[in-house]
Amino acid sequence: MLQETLKVKFKSIVGEMNVEDTQATLYAYSYDATPGFQAMPDCVVSPRNTKEVASIVKLCNEHKIPIVPRGSGTNLSGGTTPLRGGVVLLFKHMAEILEIDEENLTMTTQPGVITAHIIKAAEEVGLFYPPDPGSMQISQIGGNINENAGGLRGLKYGVTRDYVMGLEIVLPNGEIIHTGGKLAKDVAGYDLTRLFVGSEGTLGIVTQATLKLVPKPETKKTMLALFDDLETSAEAVSAIIANRIIPATLEFLDQQTVRVVEDFARIGLPTDVGAVLLIEQDGPAEVVERDMAKIEKICRETKAVDVQVAKTNAEAEALTSARRTALSALSRVRPTTILEDATVPRSEIAKMVRAIEDIAEKYQLTICTFGHAGDGNLHPTCLTDARDEKEMILVEKAFEEIFQKAIELGGTITGEHGVGAMKLPYLNLKVGEAGIEVLRGIKQSIDPNNIMNPGKIFTESERNRVVI
Amino acid sequence: MLQETLKVKFKSIVGEMNVEDTQATLYAYSYDATPGFQAMPDCVVSPRNTKEVASIVKLCNEHKIPIVPRGSGTNLSGGTTPLRGGVVLLFKHMAEILEIDEENLTMTTQPGVITAHIIKAAEEVGLFYPPDPGSMQISQIGGNINENAGGLRGLKYGVTRDYVMGLEIVLPNGEIIHTGGKLAKDVAGYDLTRLFVGSEGTLGIVTQATLKLVPKPETKKTMLALFDDLETSAEAVSAIIANRIIPATLEFLDQQTVRVVEDFARIGLPTDVGAVLLIEQDGPAEVVERDMAKIEKICRETKAVDVQVAKTNAEAEALTSARRTALSALSRVRPTTILEDATVPRSEIAKMVRAIEDIAEKYQLTICTFGHAGDGNLHPTCLTDARDEKEMILVEKAFEEIFQKAIELGGTITGEHGVGAMKLPYLNLKVGEAGIEVLRGIKQSIDPNNIMNPGKIFTESERNRVVI
Repeated sequence: MLQETLKVKFKSIVGEMNVEDTQATLYAYSYDATPGFQAMPDCVVSPRNTKEVASIVKLCNEHKIPIVPRGSGTNLSGGTTPLRGGVVLLFKHMAEILEIDEENLTMTTQPGVITAHIIKAAEEVGLFYPPDPGSMQISQIGGNINENAGGLRGLKYGVTRDYVMGLEIVLPNGEIIHTGGKLAKDVAGYDLTRLFVGSEGTLGIVTQATLKLVPKPETKKTMLALFDDLETSAEAVSAIIANRIIPATLEFLDQQTVRVVEDFARIGLPTDVGAVLLIEQDGPAEVVERDMAKIEKICRETKAVDVQVAKTNAEAEALTSARRTALSALSRVRPTTILEDATVPRSEIAKMVRAIEDIAEKYQLTICTFGHAGDGNLHPTCLTDARDEKEMILVEKAFEEIFQKAIELGGTITGEHGVGAMKLPYLNLKVGEAGIEVLRGIKQSIDPNNIMNPGKIFTESERNRVVI
Repeated sequence: MLQETLKVKFKSIVGEMNVEDTQATLYAYSYDATPGFQAMPDCVVSPRNTKEVASIVKLCNEHKIPIVPRGSGTNLSGGTTPLRGGVVLLFKHMAEILEIDEENLTMTTQPGVITAHIIKAAEEVGLFYPPDPGSMQISQIGGNINENAGGLRGLKYGVTRDYVMGLEIVLPNGEIIHTGGKLAKDVAGYDLTRLFVGSEGTLGIVTQATLKLVPKPETKKTMLALFDDLETSAEAVSAIIANRIIPATLEFLDQQTVRVVEDFARIGLPTDVGAVLLIEQDGPAEVVERDMAKIEKICRETKAVDVQVAKTNAEAEALTSARRTALSALSRVRPTTILEDATVPRSEIAKMVRAIEDIAEKYQLTICTFGHAGDGNLHPTCLTDARDEKEMILVEKAFEEIFQKAIELGGTITGEHGVGAMKLPYLNLKVGEAGIEVLRGIKQSIDPNNIMNPGKIFTESERNRVVI
């Protein structure tokens, strides 16, 4: 429990207004978008600049107080629940885009900017920030960086990691470091930029980031391809790539997801098909036309029931929303929605989706699957009720089997959501004990007091349990 | 000094033939492509598989014997000189491409494969491995991974790091770990793949890698643009990017380099121009045509003296070779060629090149500059004589000023060559003391006995000096 005297010190650093500890506030920051994880912080602190962040961190380090940096809390791995109490750090006063450098194609931003604003600001000057996580309308770029967020354009454009060129970081000891820069190439020492991207707030606080921008694609086209069963849809995915076409988006929805989405969004999706692919290509007009024609041909050859190419932007948006609303639609069906994140090599998607169906059947659970077929990143989503303890045990068993199957197929336990608190029991499946030891060693060397977002990524051994 | 009994043990692991310690062999592996760094190893070991690597490493760790993994030794930072003696590890028996997976667009390879063979093998199935370091005809992919090698296509396609999806690594304790995989997305724990890429052999031994391939660009076009002075050439670079065109290659040669290259290669370069840009674009034919027409227009508008577009493949190759032979050409002029690697944001190239000229003038040295203008990665190359101690002191002073200027312009001390033994005095300029402490902590946590390529990246403090 955090002493009152410390709160007074926090207030002297960030101002009275920016240290909150009413029950209502603490409750609001006790959970994130992940069902089943909740813990009360001791206070919520909103620093106004990097120096204040550094002062807060230094103080927490001296007193071994946990700190959880938090964006909008949209993560799905329990990554921002303050499991050991302490300070939740907000970035509402550090929410400005500082610069768009059109000559070097970079954007420098504070962590609290909404992802969609980053994307919009880039587009306004004819540039493009590709990472578009499902939560982009509310997620913050700092959270995206901490989680190495993915998105629908990952297949062609990569993920957040691929667009972070430099960081300003407050280390757990309160020191401020700068990694990378407006530099396409930098090999001065180990790649700290990419070590911190995706480190889930366990190594330090990102207080500023320089992002890479690319020229905005001239045009974009969208289509839906409908298939009788998932195997043929997976064949189409493989055939598209085998034809050396990399679409910007290549998303998959299974029958159950399509039904729920249609029921929610009423966009005229046929609910009797076995699987749907949402396909987008962007780039120069000639290339997009050619690629889309080829893709349509490939889909028809692999026995798509129908292919619908959007003729207008409005039509395209309707099709895209079929995918973008999947989580919202699914979460209406039952009280609890657990959206998971097993990833396999692209070639193994059909096997993986089939395995998920079998596992759902075995445990008598409702698991809908959708996701990024192009990069093998699937979101099996269990519609359940967290209050039903018996069912939750089955859910856990089912997901454990799903992760095991993903690993068996050469995949991973998380493609874009992170380990957080949710997946730490499964980390050794992917990384192995020797790998976990390396990760732990890095954590220990940078954050010896384990103040940075404790209880995440690693199961807490005696050795690690220094805070509580 | 390595005991004879240990050599016997090494022989029992890898076979008699694969442990060499004749004076001739030791001498051959006492240096790499970097002038001024030399040290004798105790023996040269060539394991035949990952298990043998692990056994050798385990033994070295027990006895605190340094290990230097070495590809073809083409690095330019003294990265593979065995400064503390010990074992040089060769990969001549681990030099096979294990698989090209056309469905997942990956190549799995052993470390000893020549980079150019990787590129060729990909192209043979219509795929593309973009990283093309200057030394690609002899460098090994394992060395490229350890150094995070760049190349001429970095502007559009990125560097080695961007194409390594997974690694098999033998840790300093002899454990074998696997990172990443055939996965576009993987956030299970810290990004060890990218931590090991560019770690210069100081954290472990890469024994296998899964590389990302992309579809092979349909066509490519090449042009030379000639300018009166370097400022206008830099303006053209900026204008091309400002017009939202990202060429595959955008290389710069200053007047001195052009003269030396022409003298060497006789390809008809005009030796009276102030600066030359080599520009290539690849992709779908329509786009390449359009981009190249735009680039030509931009170059003429920014007062290029002349623009020469290659009409045939042979012509294109001649133009490219103007850039590719720069190092060979320059190294004929004087006994010692020190090719450096200062990198700045693209917008600062003109300032940087001018500063290099001023510094060369100040110290009365011959420094020719060429490099990757598109990504701000310049190679100021000093033509000198290592036997002239007085001049070498000036060379060192000049380079220190060059690095300081690069940092001042928002750049880095090394864009693609690595820190190695050569740049460690300058690392704190870029990373700062707090940053170096983080790097040291990581090194210490993974390699507590400091057996992996000691004497590289870090200046050796008492704390680190455990080997000698």
